[in-house]
Amino acid sequence: MNFVTLSDIEQAQGRLRGLARHTPLLPLAVPELPYEAVYLKAESLQPIGSFKIRGAANRILALSAEERAQGVIAYSSGNHAQGVAYAARALGMSAIIVMPTNAPAVKVAATRALGAEVVLYDPAHERREDVAARLQAQGPRILVPPFDDPYVIAGQGTAGLEIFQDLPEVELVLAPVGGGGLLSGLAVALKALKPSIKIIGVEPELAADAQASLRAGHVVEWPAADTNRTLADGVRTLRLSELTFQHVRTYADDIVTVSEADLRRAARRLLTEARLVVEPTAALPLAALLRHRAALPPSRHTVLLLSGGNVDPATLAELLAGPVGD
Amino acid sequence: MNFVTLSDIEQAQGRLRGLARHTPLLPLAVPELPYEAVYLKAESLQPIGSFKIRGAANRILALSAEERAQGVIAYSSGNHAQGVAYAARALGMSAIIVMPTNAPAVKVAATRALGAEVVLYDPAHERREDVAARLQAQGPRILVPPFDDPYVIAGQGTAGLEIFQDLPEVELVLAPVGGGGLLSGLAVALKALKPSIKIIGVEPELAADAQASLRAGHVVEWPAADTNRTLADGVRTLRLSELTFQHVRTYADDIVTVSEADLRRAARRLLTEARLVVEPTAALPLAALLRHRAALPPSRHTVLLLSGGNVDPATLAELLAGPVGD
Repeated sequence: MNFVTLSDIEQAQGRLRGLARHTPLLPLAVPELPYEAVYLKAESLQPIGSFKIRGAANRILALSAEERAQGVIAYSSGNHAQGVAYAARALGMSAIIVMPTNAPAVKVAATRALGAEVVLYDPAHERREDVAARLQAQGPRILVPPFDDPYVIAGQGTAGLEIFQDLPEVELVLAPVGGGGLLSGLAVALKALKPSIKIIGVEPELAADAQASLRAGHVVEWPAADTNRTLADGVRTLRLSELTFQHVRTYADDIVTVSEADLRRAARRLLTEARLVVEPTAALPLAALLRHRAALPPSRHTVLLLSGGNVDPATLAELLAGPVGD
Repeated sequence: MNFVTLSDIEQAQGRLRGLARHTPLLPLAVPELPYEAVYLKAESLQPIGSFKIRGAANRILALSAEERAQGVIAYSSGNHAQGVAYAARALGMSAIIVMPTNAPAVKVAATRALGAEVVLYDPAHERREDVAARLQAQGPRILVPPFDDPYVIAGQGTAGLEIFQDLPEVELVLAPVGGGGLLSGLAVALKALKPSIKIIGVEPELAADAQASLRAGHVVEWPAADTNRTLADGVRTLRLSELTFQHVRTYADDIVTVSEADLRRAARRLLTEARLVVEPTAALPLAALLRHRAALPPSRHTVLLLSGGNVDPATLAELLAGPVGD
C-alpha cells in the first residue's frame, strides 16, 4: 500500500490556493479546563461550509486535461456533493451528483445551486452503483470518491498543515471519523511536522465502526440500522476503506466515542458560546474533550476540528431548544 | 469639543492586546453582487460575543490606580454589561451592573457568570439614575458609559484599525448605529488611514434617530415606544450623545435605514450562508447592502461590521424558521 506523504499534502496546499480557504483557528473558552488553551479549526467557514471542499478540489485539480474534459461524477447526500460541485464549477467542468430521493431538500437545492446536475434515485428500489453505471454508459466520467482516494486524503490533510502553521505549539488534535479521509490526512501531515503530537479520532457510540476496526486490527463494518441512529449525519459511513484504515492505524493515536447526549450538549455550546453555526458532526471533538478529559493525552494547546456547518434549520432549532441544563 | 484621534485609537489597540481579539475578516459570497468582494468583520467572535468589549476595556484600562480601586459601575441590559464585567474581571476589579428586571434572564446570567454583581431595578417604578445614585452613595465607583466617552469611542475604533491592517484595499464600510460609539470610532480611524474610504451607518426604520439627527443638523431623540419595536435590540438607543453626533457628522458619510423584513432576511442569510450565529442588530449592514446597493458608493472591497452574536435561542429559532423565500 502506498501511503499519502507530507509532500503530497504540501502539493495539495499549493493547488487549493484560491479555492479552499485557510480557515481561522478560533480560541474557545472552556471553563472546565482552566489551564488549557482550546482552539476551533473552523471548517464551517469554508465556502461550502465544510472541510470536504479540500479533498474534492484536490482530486479534481489533479486530473489531466483529457480527464477534465470527461467531467466528474460523485455519489453523496451530504457535504462531499457540494465540494465536488463547487470545485467542478470553479474549473468550468461538468458535474453529476447522484443523490437518494430521501436526501434533505435543502442539500439537493444547494448542490443544484452550485451548478451540478443532480440525479435522484430511490434507495429502496435501486443501488447507487447501478445508477452510476447507467450514467457512465451514456458517457464515461471521472468518479470522485468521498474518502477512498489518496488525493482526497491529501486534500483533507491541508487542514493539518494550516493548524501547524498557525499554532506550532499544538499538542493534541481531535477530529471526527466517518470514512476516515480527514483523520488520515490530518494525522499524516501533523505527525510528519511534529512527531510528538497526539491525534485522536472521535465517533458517536452509535457508529463506532472505526474504533472497532482499530481494536480488531482489520476493517469492521457496522450495519446502517445502527449508524443511521446518530444525529451526527456526517459520520454514518458504515466502514473505513482499506486505505483509510491503514493510514489511521499507522498515524493516528486512538479513537474515542461519545454518547448522543454528549454530542447534543457540545453542539449547543458551540452555538451559544462559540457563536458558530455547526452541524452535529462538528461537535464530536468538543464532546470528546468534555467527556474523556482525564483519559486523553495531556495537552496545553488543543485543536478541535470543527468539520462543518451545514445543518438544516429544524435540527438547529431543536439543538437550541434543548432542555435547560442539557 | 475634543475629537478622538487616530493616535487615541492606536493607543487603545496597544492597551487591548490580550483582552480583545483581533477578529477575522471572513469573505461572504453575495451572488447578487458578482463583481464585489464582501467581508464580514466578525465581532461576534469576541470573547463576550460583541465589539462592546473594545470600548469598555479601553475605558477601564485607562483608569488610574486610585480609580481602579474604586471599582466600576455600568447600566446596561445588553452587550455593554458583559464588556464591562469581562474587562473588570480580567483586571481583578469589582464591577456592579444595573439591569432592569425585564432584561432577558440569559443576559443577567451571562453577566453574573463573568463575576459582576448585578443589581436589578423595576423600570416601571424606578429610574436607573436613581438606582445608581443610591449605589454610589454606598461608595463611589467609576461609571463606564456605553458610548458617550472618548475612551469608549477610541476602543470601538480599534476594529477600524484592524480592518485597514487586514484589507488595505477596503473602499466601503457599513456599520450599525445605536448610540454612535462604534460608528464614531470606525470613522475616525478609517478616514485618518484612508481619506477616500466611505463609512455608512445603518439603522432600522423604526429607530432612525441618528439619520434624523444628521438631516436636522442637531441631535434628535426618538420615543422608546418607536425604537422598542425593532428586532435589532442593540440599536434601540433613543439618541446619539452630543459627542458621538459630532463625530458621526464630521467623519461618517451617511446613514441609511432598512425595514424589519430586510433585517430578518439578512439575519437568516448570515446564519445559513455565513454560518455565524448573529444577533439581529449584526445583520443591519448586510440588509443595507442588499437594499440600497444602487444608491451606495461604488466599492470593490466592502466590509460589513457584524456587531455581535448574543441572541436568545428563541429569537434564533424564529429567524431560522422564517417563511420559505424570506
